[in-house]
Amino acid sequence: MKPDPCAIEALVRAALLEDAPWGDITSEVLLPADLLMSAQLVAREDGVLCGEDVFSTAMSMAGPVAVNFFKRDSDSFSAGDVLADLSGPAHSILRAERVALNFAQRLSGIATETAKYVAETKGTKARIVDTRKTTPGLRLLERYAVRCGGGHNHRFSLSDAVLAKDNHLAALQTSTANDLTGRLRAAFARLPHTTHKEVEVDSLEQIAPVLAAGVDTIMLDNFTLEDLRAGVAQIAGRALIEASGGISLERVREIADTGVDLISVGALTHSVRSIDLGLDFSGA
Amino acid sequence: MKPDPCAIEALVRAALLEDAPWGDITSEVLLPADLLMSAQLVAREDGVLCGEDVFSTAMSMAGPVAVNFFKRDSDSFSAGDVLADLSGPAHSILRAERVALNFAQRLSGIATETAKYVAETKGTKARIVDTRKTTPGLRLLERYAVRCGGGHNHRFSLSDAVLAKDNHLAALQTSTANDLTGRLRAAFARLPHTTHKEVEVDSLEQIAPVLAAGVDTIMLDNFTLEDLRAGVAQIAGRALIEASGGISLERVREIADTGVDLISVGALTHSVRSIDLGLDFSGA
Amino acid sequence: MKPDPCAIEALVRAALLEDAPWGDITSEVLLPADLLMSAQLVAREDGVLCGEDVFSTAMSMAGPVAVNFFKRDSDSFSAGDVLADLSGPAHSILRAERVALNFAQRLSGIATETAKYVAETKGTKARIVDTRKTTPGLRLLERYAVRCGGGHNHRFSLSDAVLAKDNHLAALQTSTANDLTGRLRAAFARLPHTTHKEVEVDSLEQIAPVLAAGVDTIMLDNFTLEDLRAGVAQIAGRALIEASGGISLERVREIADTGVDLISVGALTHSVRSIDLGLDFSGA
Amino acid sequence: MKPDPCAIEALVRAALLEDAPWGDITSEVLLPADLLMSAQLVAREDGVLCGEDVFSTAMSMAGPVAVNFFKRDSDSFSAGDVLADLSGPAHSILRAERVALNFAQRLSGIATETAKYVAETKGTKARIVDTRKTTPGLRLLERYAVRCGGGHNHRFSLSDAVLAKDNHLAALQTSTANDLTGRLRAAFARLPHTTHKEVEVDSLEQIAPVLAAGVDTIMLDNFTLEDLRAGVAQIAGRALIEASGGISLERVREIADTGVDLISVGALTHSVRSIDLGLDFSGA
Amino acid sequence: MKPDPCAIEALVRAALLEDAPWGDITSEVLLPADLLMSAQLVAREDGVLCGEDVFSTAMSMAGPVAVNFFKRDSDSFSAGDVLADLSGPAHSILRAERVALNFAQRLSGIATETAKYVAETKGTKARIVDTRKTTPGLRLLERYAVRCGGGHNHRFSLSDAVLAKDNHLAALQTSTANDLTGRLRAAFARLPHTTHKEVEVDSLEQIAPVLAAGVDTIMLDNFTLEDLRAGVAQIAGRALIEASGGISLERVREIADTGVDLISVGALTHSVRSIDLGLDFSGA
Amino acid sequence: MKPDPCAIEALVRAALLEDAPWGDITSEVLLPADLLMSAQLVAREDGVLCGEDVFSTAMSMAGPVAVNFFKRDSDSFSAGDVLADLSGPAHSILRAERVALNFAQRLSGIATETAKYVAETKGTKARIVDTRKTTPGLRLLERYAVRCGGGHNHRFSLSDAVLAKDNHLAALQTSTANDLTGRLRAAFARLPHTTHKEVEVDSLEQIAPVLAAGVDTIMLDNFTLEDLRAGVAQIAGRALIEASGGISLERVREIADTGVDLISVGALTHSVRSIDLGLDFSGA
Repeated sequence: MKPDPCAIEALVRAALLEDAPWGDITSEVLLPADLLMSAQLVAREDGVLCGEDVFSTAMSMAGPVAVNFFKRDSDSFSAGDVLADLSGPAHSILRAERVALNFAQRLSGIATETAKYVAETKGTKARIVDTRKTTPGLRLLERYAVRCGGGHNHRFSLSDAVLAKDNHLAALQTSTANDLTGRLRAAFARLPHTTHKEVEVDSLEQIAPVLAAGVDTIMLDNFTLEDLRAGVAQIAGRALIEASGGISLERVREIADTGVDLISVGALTHSVRSIDLGLDFSGA
Repeated sequence: MKPDPCAIEALVRAALLEDAPWGDITSEVLLPADLLMSAQLVAREDGVLCGEDVFSTAMSMAGPVAVNFFKRDSDSFSAGDVLADLSGPAHSILRAERVALNFAQRLSGIATETAKYVAETKGTKARIVDTRKTTPGLRLLERYAVRCGGGHNHRFSLSDAVLAKDNHLAALQTSTANDLTGRLRAAFARLPHTTHKEVEVDSLEQIAPVLAAGVDTIMLDNFTLEDLRAGVAQIAGRALIEASGGISLERVREIADTGVDLISVGALTHSVRSIDLGLDFSGA
Repeated sequence: MKPDPCAIEALVRAALLEDAPWGDITSEVLLPADLLMSAQLVAREDGVLCGEDVFSTAMSMAGPVAVNFFKRDSDSFSAGDVLADLSGPAHSILRAERVALNFAQRLSGIATETAKYVAETKGTKARIVDTRKTTPGLRLLERYAVRCGGGHNHRFSLSDAVLAKDNHLAALQTSTANDLTGRLRAAFARLPHTTHKEVEVDSLEQIAPVLAAGVDTIMLDNFTLEDLRAGVAQIAGRALIEASGGISLERVREIADTGVDLISVGALTHSVRSIDLGLDFSGA
Repeated sequence: MKPDPCAIEALVRAALLEDAPWGDITSEVLLPADLLMSAQLVAREDGVLCGEDVFSTAMSMAGPVAVNFFKRDSDSFSAGDVLADLSGPAHSILRAERVALNFAQRLSGIATETAKYVAETKGTKARIVDTRKTTPGLRLLERYAVRCGGGHNHRFSLSDAVLAKDNHLAALQTSTANDLTGRLRAAFARLPHTTHKEVEVDSLEQIAPVLAAGVDTIMLDNFTLEDLRAGVAQIAGRALIEASGGISLERVREIADTGVDLISVGALTHSVRSIDLGLDFSGA
Repeated sequence: MKPDPCAIEALVRAALLEDAPWGDITSEVLLPADLLMSAQLVAREDGVLCGEDVFSTAMSMAGPVAVNFFKRDSDSFSAGDVLADLSGPAHSILRAERVALNFAQRLSGIATETAKYVAETKGTKARIVDTRKTTPGLRLLERYAVRCGGGHNHRFSLSDAVLAKDNHLAALQTSTANDLTGRLRAAFARLPHTTHKEVEVDSLEQIAPVLAAGVDTIMLDNFTLEDLRAGVAQIAGRALIEASGGISLERVREIADTGVDLISVGALTHSVRSIDLGLDFSGA
Repeated sequence: MKPDPCAIEALVRAALLEDAPWGDITSEVLLPADLLMSAQLVAREDGVLCGEDVFSTAMSMAGPVAVNFFKRDSDSFSAGDVLADLSGPAHSILRAERVALNFAQRLSGIATETAKYVAETKGTKARIVDTRKTTPGLRLLERYAVRCGGGHNHRFSLSDAVLAKDNHLAALQTSTANDLTGRLRAAFARLPHTTHKEVEVDSLEQIAPVLAAGVDTIMLDNFTLEDLRAGVAQIAGRALIEASGGISLERVREIADTGVDLISVGALTHSVRSIDLGLDFSGA
């Protein structure tokens, strides 16, 4: 389930243009156009790789650069590991270096962080899932990075699944008396049969009417551990259960142990620490 | 020096399309099209604001939403502060909410982090500057966020200034014996007269030949504090001095105290922690 | 659930450019630029309207043309009905006329045809749904036209729901012995929890292993009426049932009467008869 | 006179993106990425082929798929004929299948319908020509399909030929008394010398003043057979004659027999019945 | 027959982006954002105006700048004439100044040069027409400038009229013996009836077979005056006659006097001398 | 420092589309699709070449055309010189001919004109530099052409260097009393350290306060020779000196002899005379 090559090309092309609208003047004045170079992509810290294709695409869009990866997306690596060899025109490698690294470091950062949450919840049935808190323009890649780290994806966008949040319910109830179940059911009836229906609840009391409307997933938002356990018991398999709200690496295990099916973690993508990767040049 | 409105519109339009290629099906089935809403943009932690225009643009592209900011870009805020009021069609506000927040949280995250480095170096002559380690596609905005935090910008791209790094010098010397000064001078002579010329050095010994070539800035990369001080003394105002390499909030003050002019911090943009902002709905 | 105005604008803009890359030379040489006109959009046959927004957008992109619709999308109309009044510069109205009609006639054609299938199956629980056999580039609009006719949508694309067809199953079984249930289950486990899972079967025998894998919908492809009834009985509410394959207006009622949930009709969009609409000019 | 490969690529790329914005999740989870497949493109009814290049382009944009056509554009085929062989990665073929068929079925539908009109008028001098009633965005391809069916093209757009219709003439006469001939002549004098000048008339009386203005083609709109014959006699070769308005397969021969030069048929493109083509998979 | 506003906007937007991808840093650091300015667009030499809309569009895309033109496109002006008044934010006017002038100066240069050729041939029946030797990307505007200067347009592109040149004829005759007339006729029969057919000839002998094929225009390329006169006599009104090849302002009158219908002048657009226009600022 | 291949491709693609939106109908009806041709690119006057890559790209985008240049960009050539050989499908060569020539003739025109200014100032230290008076959309190529002619580039855009002109200074002084030096200094302090700072002065009196603000270049605009000499003496190497304003080939030498560093010549790009290049076909 790799991202489409066309989508990658479009993103990389825009990034290369952003980073050198009128050429790389440093290399152009300093280095002969026919100078060849070899280099290694080296990990400067431990992590999980994501970004092979983006990295290779950036290089090949800049010229005839051969890139040979020793690790694949989803593989773990250690500080000092050589992740890839590359060789080609110095102008091309230096032209694409920063763009290729900017992508690979961020995506590997997301994969690495995700892997920590996944490891932490090992043995439970809880999936670690992403959110829509992704970097504008990079959602396709960032969701892929979450998968490389062993996580799963939530809906892609507002268009491909229903997720009714507190504000929807509040607005609903204002305008339609109190028949939440009936109102949800009527709304769901207008949806394509392929649409997944998820509703967020803030308290145990909301579960019954929501469940009665025929939802696929119930999100228990900012529940205490105790309430999570009560919710799991109450729902009893009649819908998937997603825990959300302020999930951290410290708290994720105890949440998973409550028996929820899904734990959504905004921090996987809204706050990214790039993994330190670098190019070591091994000479002309 | 705000980003161009056209550039902002293009980025926001793409983000809105990414987040709802076929509409927001949740609101469409749950809420009447003519339902109006009011909401407040509230800070859930302390920070420095960046993203007014992006936020407002996202809302106004989704419909006739009125947004009124109480804080401006570059202003500090505290947890609990109401940053803006907004009102308009519920469909529009909910359609744009995530996109508007995704931008504003990231940019405020960068501004906030930058402000910490700037505060830490207060009273020294050192500028905190950004690098090309920005999110692909968002460089224009992220550089603006650095300025909102009190930092300064480095070159925008490979096209608008020369920055010769270790790999350039290594390649150069391979192919041109040892006359680094002469080779740099010859290269510089081919540049437009408006081009700033910066060269990275890894040791004190490299300073003299680089300085003799007529550079504008010398980057002292990964120097010890002692070597930084020696470099400052040796260069003695004949070029600007940039310290770079592994700069952290902990070390930035002692580096600034060596007397360098510029401290470039990749972490300002390569690793971003979003500031927690949220919309509180105050009813229909 | 109207299509996004931005999406409509992009389609209309491209169509206007296609139809007059260098201007409308006929009007330009024949008519004064300040000549105003009034016109009526008139139905020349019975139908169901779809295309209000596209029609109005085409006009307003060509100039300050006021369009006032008397029927709304989803409304039925009869031959001779005036659907809308318009007035504005003659240059603008004539510039946009063909494009506006090309869209509205096709979309109304789809809505009208859909409405016939919906009427034919009235009183049954079967939904009439569309397929991916849409005109390249116009899927968003054509799916909307199906809804205007009272139909429902199936998945939008290959990306937002699983639909395993005969070829997938054949390929699967080649490579994985005969454990269809196990193989499907393993595949489904990799999907986001929001993904709807549908599998096509060609015979009653395939139903059991597919059902056991935990599907949401089973497509009974090209089944006889008798087999459809048997399938409905066998599945017994454990999955939605979609009938597909060579559905025609003549056969749709008897198929609906078998008790299936969904009937997908490629002809709704793969073969479109435009509804005859025209502009009658009522003078300057 | 095949459509430009660049234009085809742009249309196919957009259609592929529309049909799988985030990949083909069914194949991705069900089939190994290295699974190869063979298939045949088979006609399920008689027709005239159009769409070779679009079909092949869709496949090759999705991966290294080899396509070998046995029939060429403009060739007739019968139900059961194998039109092409294809082989390549299963992921690629299944990814492009629907898009490739959507194009080829529609274009072949247009070519097939056109060929019927052409056959019906065989032996007369009348050309069957298309109109601007094409699918928005697909005019280039649909005009090509008309040619594949043996028809000819009319003007491409509002920009490349003059066609003054009743509304133009009405507006003209309002504002310029009754000197139609003089007004047309003055307008024509402003045109490039390469511009073809056609005027629509609704009655025999309008022919004389229009002819006197020096037109290249006169369109006799909605004329009776008798009036068509009278018009042909009156014009007597001094301009080309186009019959238009409600042309059907039933009436086209008797219209052609009146001696007109051109018969324009909106139905060739405004109402398209896709020809039934399918992919038969012959195993991995 | 003004260029389409959408086309103008696209060209101006691209030019503004080219001229300030990251903002106008000079104004931004020097001038307050709320500083207002007035200015006049002044002619520094005589000429014919073309570019009103492009100029105004550039200004209004940069901000709320009011532009009021005192001369219109096609008007003559003298050195010192004030062509327009403008007022608005200093940031906006300075941001758009160069782009607005670059367009208006070039287009006015073309209109002015064209007007000289038109004046020189006054009283003859010869039209001055442009060629396809236009600036890549600006053909729409440059053809408009030719019209503003009193000239006429030739075909827009390779797609909208036939112009068979010497190379076509040479290639034709190689492959089809010597029946030029028959070969041309066969080729023309495949064209839409709206297509203008022009053939270039290099000698008087070629005229007869070309004329016999039924062409609309014959181009006499690089003919002597004597041969032009002979060609005019020989063709005798059976086709339009275009003189081409090395036309200069000095020679154009004697060529027009030979009785040709069209004189095509590549220099109108392939070599442009910008008219000197400038902005005079009249204070804040 | 050749323009980026991607940028060239985008410009050429747009130009090819502009020149044949629906194909080259002349070649399509006249010449067999498999006809091959050879041709030579021949200079019809003396000049300096610029446009190799653009020419070759245009040809290769139109088909498998082999192009072999005998002269390289920056080389001088004489009338009659064969600049390149090409061979390939006649359809492709004729399709791309005009676009390829339009680019190469204009760029060679700029290179040739620049070379004259460079030759005229030989032996002085003055650089001939371009301005922002370039053709909208073609700045990247035209700046390259200036370099091919031996000239140098000035800033690319409003974004990459400061150039404060008379209007800026006038506006500044209005709003900030008379402390020009202080105001400039404050403004410069907000700039990135990589930004080149140039200020235009109109009189000798302005030099001192501008110099005191720490500028990199001072532009002496429309100075007499005497004042230029006085300015050079006064500045005495503390900033670069640019002479500008009405520079002509006749006056450039005497200006260079005053000792200025840079002479900016708008006419290099605002008024271009295309160099006459042509394709001679040598048969099929």
